Amino acid sequence: MKYAVNAMKTLADELFKDFREHSVSEFFRKNAAMLGYTGKIRSLTTVVHEGVTNSIDAAEEAGILPSISVMIKRVDENLEHLKVVIEDNASGIPEEFIPGVFGKMLAGTKLHRNMQSRGQQGIGIVGSVMFGQITSGRPATVVTSTGNGEIVHANVMIDVDKNEGKVLNGKKLKGDWQGTRLELELKDVAYVRSRYGPFNYLRMTAIANPHVQITFVEPDGTLTVFERATDKIPERPKPMAPHPWGIMSDDLLVLAKHTKSRTLAGFLVAELSRMTKGKVKEVQKLSGVDLNKRPSELTWEEAEGIVSAFKQIKFMAPPTAGLRPIGAAEIESGMRQILNPEFVHAVTRPPKAYRGGIPFIVEAGIAYGGGAGKTAEGEGIETEGLDLIRFANRAPLVFDQGGCAITSAARSIDWRRYGVDVATAPLTLFVNLVSAYVPYTSAGKQSIADEPEVHEEVRAAIMDVARELRRYLYRKIRVKERQQRASIFERYLPIIAKKAASLVGKKEPDIKPLLKKVAGVEDA
Amino acid sequence: MKYAVNAMKTLADELFKDFREHSVSEFFRKNAAMLGYTGKIRSLTTVVHEGVTNSIDAAEEAGILPSISVMIKRVDENLEHLKVVIEDNASGIPEEFIPGVFGKMLAGTKLHRNMQSRGQQGIGIVGSVMFGQITSGRPATVVTSTGNGEIVHANVMIDVDKNEGKVLNGKKLKGDWQGTRLELELKDVAYVRSRYGPFNYLRMTAIANPHVQITFVEPDGTLTVFERATDKIPERPKPMAPHPWGIMSDDLLVLAKHTKSRTLAGFLVAELSRMTKGKVKEVQKLSGVDLNKRPSELTWEEAEGIVSAFKQIKFMAPPTAGLRPIGAAEIESGMRQILNPEFVHAVTRPPKAYRGGIPFIVEAGIAYGGGAGKTAEGEGIETEGLDLIRFANRAPLVFDQGGCAITSAARSIDWRRYGVDVATAPLTLFVNLVSAYVPYTSAGKQSIADEPEVHEEVRAAIMDVARELRRYLYRKIRVKERQQRASIFERYLPIIAKKAASLVGKKEPDIKPLLKKVAGVEDA
Repeated sequence: MKYAVNAMKTLADELFKDFREHSVSEFFRKNAAMLGYTGKIRSLTTVVHEGVTNSIDAAEEAGILPSISVMIKRVDENLEHLKVVIEDNASGIPEEFIPGVFGKMLAGTKLHRNMQSRGQQGIGIVGSVMFGQITSGRPATVVTSTGNGEIVHANVMIDVDKNEGKVLNGKKLKGDWQGTRLELELKDVAYVRSRYGPFNYLRMTAIANPHVQITFVEPDGTLTVFERATDKIPERPKPMAPHPWGIMSDDLLVLAKHTKSRTLAGFLVAELSRMTKGKVKEVQKLSGVDLNKRPSELTWEEAEGIVSAFKQIKFMAPPTAGLRPIGAAEIESGMRQILNPEFVHAVTRPPKAYRGGIPFIVEAGIAYGGGAGKTAEGEGIETEGLDLIRFANRAPLVFDQGGCAITSAARSIDWRRYGVDVATAPLTLFVNLVSAYVPYTSAGKQSIADEPEVHEEVRAAIMDVARELRRYLYRKIRVKERQQRASIFERYLPIIAKKAASLVGKKEPDIKPLLKKVAGVEDA
Repeated sequence: MKYAVNAMKTLADELFKDFREHSVSEFFRKNAAMLGYTGKIRSLTTVVHEGVTNSIDAAEEAGILPSISVMIKRVDENLEHLKVVIEDNASGIPEEFIPGVFGKMLAGTKLHRNMQSRGQQGIGIVGSVMFGQITSGRPATVVTSTGNGEIVHANVMIDVDKNEGKVLNGKKLKGDWQGTRLELELKDVAYVRSRYGPFNYLRMTAIANPHVQITFVEPDGTLTVFERATDKIPERPKPMAPHPWGIMSDDLLVLAKHTKSRTLAGFLVAELSRMTKGKVKEVQKLSGVDLNKRPSELTWEEAEGIVSAFKQIKFMAPPTAGLRPIGAAEIESGMRQILNPEFVHAVTRPPKAYRGGIPFIVEAGIAYGGGAGKTAEGEGIETEGLDLIRFANRAPLVFDQGGCAITSAARSIDWRRYGVDVATAPLTLFVNLVSAYVPYTSAGKQSIADEPEVHEEVRAAIMDVARELRRYLYRKIRVKERQQRASIFERYLPIIAKKAASLVGKKEPDIKPLLKKVAGVEDA
């Protein structure tokens, strides 16, 4: 169908003469709020989040124990500018990929994998570079080496009209080092040590990632080291084939387009989990689709038929081998390391699925006493009572707690039944949701949708740890009562013994063994 | 800086071999929730919103009084599929632009204009086509004519990998008609007649757009016509030069890059509002920037210097000639037409600015009695008491009311002072925010950020209309009391007159003039 030139110039032709195409960078420049750049405090925390997430992912992907350092400082000449420096010890970035990694949106290595990971879209860190550029006018400075003896030093700016990164003043130095250092200069940001600021964000990151060492320098020069509590690098999550119950027709068509299998039958077994030849026969029978044809010939109607057949067939639950929970012991280490509490307990629940076929795991931890229940130690805002810290795939969720399934599940618990007054108890409650598809409520990825299965599972995990806390608190009360009782005996038994001895004219007996017995009577 | 091939293959080289670029369509396919496609009800309303918004904008832009028809029907073969048909009488779309308008994201005629409009991003309607495609597998059907005697009929699918629209089975018919008809087949949607469904969305659209005629056919065949209440097409909003107080350094540089002016001084006067030669001199003095240089030579530091000089200079308030409020009389017509209330009152407040230089106008309307206070007439969920309906540039805001500045302003009112019990009064409160930059809280564009100036202005507008309501309600009470008093006199005066007359043995007097006097005494 070609455009027929028409002698009559219509109104529409006139109106459409300004029809133009724009770049995705230009779109997010105008809609920075979509990426979390809203308000001075949140904007700064978003930059720290994007940088730290990228660094931890890069180190883990390379099998390196992550050591991250974050520094935020005021830029002297202009007090309104802040500089954020994030450095890691990961694999470094090959020179040719620097403009792509930091300057081109929707580019990356992680976009097409069905696995649990922190970042996925190839937008996050480019968004931070852009935010720096549009608020301070400064390029990002990237210093990186892949360990090949050369350290690349490059300033990167984004050509917003073209969605392209441009390297300015690139130079190379000799040196033995491996890792990446990113420096961003920002305006329209504010540093505070509140619940929503970078300090608490990093502290939460340290709790959920006990294998990561984080060094943080605040604008006033305060140095904090969140030491790692374990030297074990988490196993990398594995890509997982989707489960038949969790797939939509459109997804099936996209998979069929890219498969190497030669028949639909082979394709279903190869690309979906829990698919056996026996199940394929059931699909064939129920859908009536000829499964010997080529996957590329799959039509929409057939895909719909197959998907609706899936729903009628019994399958094993989705595989969860690819999911990587933190682990109860590691969560306890992390909470102990950072909060130094008197009691801590954590659980990793068995995998469940939501929307039929999307597997997830919930982990919960509870810490009592010590630094628990306090948002940030030292100066800054401290909260009293229960402090709920939320995570998705180990990444802290700091904002939008109101609409989050984790928050609503925690609120639905009758805490008095566990001997806790949530308004005053020194308590930190930790919840981590692990999934290849976290059901976020919005683009900001700070809040989890109230899927019924997720809600129930979070509730169950919280009750698991709350029960252990109740046991601890009751034991503590009993110990206290026993001590009180023992101290009464200690005080009065010697007097009674003395009086009794003098009354009967006998020598005062040794009451120490008796006191010991009284004090120890409940240890049995 | 070129990429030096290094003999040593590093870990990083291995990790980066999968680095790929993706299309913006692919991004939004995976993140459809960012565009409002979340939940079955909201997804359907979002499709209706995108279609109707496009249609009204297109008609107004062409100077045509908009007549829109919307039809939602079940697709027979498969009860889970719905078809949405939206037809307008606007200018039509030239054939060559069909793939771009319906199949390419971030393309359009409205992206670079500093003016008030409904859609702006070139994403909305493409998102609806994509949602249809990924849920039902069906292309969009477009029927359009620019009035040149040819009607183009095309099926459009999006090539998600390339972010391109493809026309299938395009054909042309002869015919005298002008307009566009879009048909989308959808799955994973649900039709309900609730506050959040298409019926209420269209009803709200009709109230705020009394010049638009909307015909709506529901899946059960029910036909509703929202008749237009006025034949006046709103004047098109005009692009407005930005005000110096509302501009950021980055914006100034972008403007300088595209200007036709030869000097910075000329550029400032040409591209910003409220800029005179005198003000330019002040800028020169305060910033120390040489304003005789070419705009293209403007550096970031100079731009920052100029922007900070702006803040120290007194300017007239931002121009508001480009803003197009609905107008109090039109709001009242709209509310009368749709709600048929016993009392209605509306105000359009004078323009204000937020964040220093971004102009906006708040309008409020209140309706009492009749259909007011009810979300949807007939079947479906009806609310009791105050019904708040929110708008931004005449487009209904249906979702996310919790975090919206309009909601919080309405809640902050002490309604008892206005003689209203919000839990029971048959009351509809209308608020419209007019601005070239509506400060939305998120990408869903359903909620307005709590900017202090906006909050205060919405509050003031609501109190304006609430005062009129109070006057009406008090008058109503007085009339009622007077009627009661009059009826007492009417009942007893004749008896008293008779008794008195018989007592004194006189003829009964004519008390009608007296009764009239009593009843009318408060009319003065």
